[in-house]
Amino acid sequence: MKEENSTAVITAKTDGLKLVIGFLIFPEQDQIDFTGPFEVLSRLPEVSTHVISKTTDPVRDIKGLILTPEMTIADSPLLDVLVVSGGLGQQNLMDDHEVLSLIRNQFDSGRYLFSVCTGALLCGAAGILKGRKATTHWAAWDLLKYYGADALKSRFVVDGNYISSAGITAGIDGALALAAILSGEEVAKEIQLDMEYDPAPPFDSGTPDKASRVTVDEFYRQYGINKESRLSDAEQYAERHGILIK
Amino acid sequence: MKEENSTAVITAKTDGLKLVIGFLIFPEQDQIDFTGPFEVLSRLPEVSTHVISKTTDPVRDIKGLILTPEMTIADSPLLDVLVVSGGLGQQNLMDDHEVLSLIRNQFDSGRYLFSVCTGALLCGAAGILKGRKATTHWAAWDLLKYYGADALKSRFVVDGNYISSAGITAGIDGALALAAILSGEEVAKEIQLDMEYDPAPPFDSGTPDKASRVTVDEFYRQYGINKESRLSDAEQYAERHGILIK
Repeated sequence: MKEENSTAVITAKTDGLKLVIGFLIFPEQDQIDFTGPFEVLSRLPEVSTHVISKTTDPVRDIKGLILTPEMTIADSPLLDVLVVSGGLGQQNLMDDHEVLSLIRNQFDSGRYLFSVCTGALLCGAAGILKGRKATTHWAAWDLLKYYGADALKSRFVVDGNYISSAGITAGIDGALALAAILSGEEVAKEIQLDMEYDPAPPFDSGTPDKASRVTVDEFYRQYGINKESRLSDAEQYAERHGILIK
Repeated sequence: MKEENSTAVITAKTDGLKLVIGFLIFPEQDQIDFTGPFEVLSRLPEVSTHVISKTTDPVRDIKGLILTPEMTIADSPLLDVLVVSGGLGQQNLMDDHEVLSLIRNQFDSGRYLFSVCTGALLCGAAGILKGRKATTHWAAWDLLKYYGADALKSRFVVDGNYISSAGITAGIDGALALAAILSGEEVAKEIQLDMEYDPAPPFDSGTPDKASRVTVDEFYRQYGINKESRLSDAEQYAERHGILIK
């Protein structure tokens, strides 16, 4: 398996029988940050999945898709894995004590924490990225250093019990790597075959290195104010945690 | 753009202003057949999306994820695109007059019909595959001939106003191709960059040709009875439509 760091800690299953996996969802997230890893991890043998949010009210993703949680954070059991989505709505949670505590407690317990896209910034706000290898969406990648992370330009990164993936669709790749850690490579390969995950995009425009200048410029034109808002958050966190930006 | 057939018919937008895209969902479908294309197509400029089902009651996908429709088939407006998911629940709809009529009417209108995975079998049951190029999930691929299709082993196939993709995650690739047809290649490339869709699976096990024998055998062990049930449906349709299987 190709990964940055294979020193993952294999933790005991929380209930001894099933893997218990929680997916944190929130308004204005990017839905496939959640549904991509769900597709992979829900196929693990002997797994139970929980869709978790601050309340059990349905939320809409950034493009309006209704996502329905079935458990509150307060009711969440011990989780073998917590999956943290990203997307623009992540910015509204950067000071949310309940969400940040959930993330920090998961990480501190030694069980797996998996961030997708800018879910990594929530992990940063929770204070766990300092000195840790991490990645995130390419457009937010330069913010990781404000949270003290050792930022890597990888599709996904495994550093101990923290796994992070790059933007949006990278959650599928990271989830397959995590599936192998949890249940072995053979299981992960069976899941890949079942999902017919043999990607063949019709274009080669998935990173700023590969996309044309015109395409990248158009991205930034639309990204606009979100870039400033995320930078402002990052600067505040760097100051709060005494992280020096070079 | 790499595609099998680029003779796609560009149809007029239904309301002259926005692209109107409907996603048909149903119980026990595979959720990413829907959420993958939604992720791509909801990013088109000037688009409105409708999540459509037989009723507006939430449904669960095959792994229990709650999906919430917001419109009934009966209330569905004219659609520029109808996206038809697959997954095991598709078998329960193979004789559903309302669903098959929705699919057939969409196709007959000349507007786009896009099937993902075994959504192609629903299109077959609706009688539109005869003489048409199509693909589906690799494990159901040999059933396409029972519906009279010219089956192609491609990630996605464009034949006039009918687009089909291979299994599950192939819906993302097919949706990008469809995005280019609807709004031009530059828009599709911007969406790909935004989604950071530069896939790098940690394993190379996404098709039966690439997977090991052990992995393929394990797939079939789990697929079991579904294979027989789908074959039985296919044989009935072949007989009903007078299609001779060679």
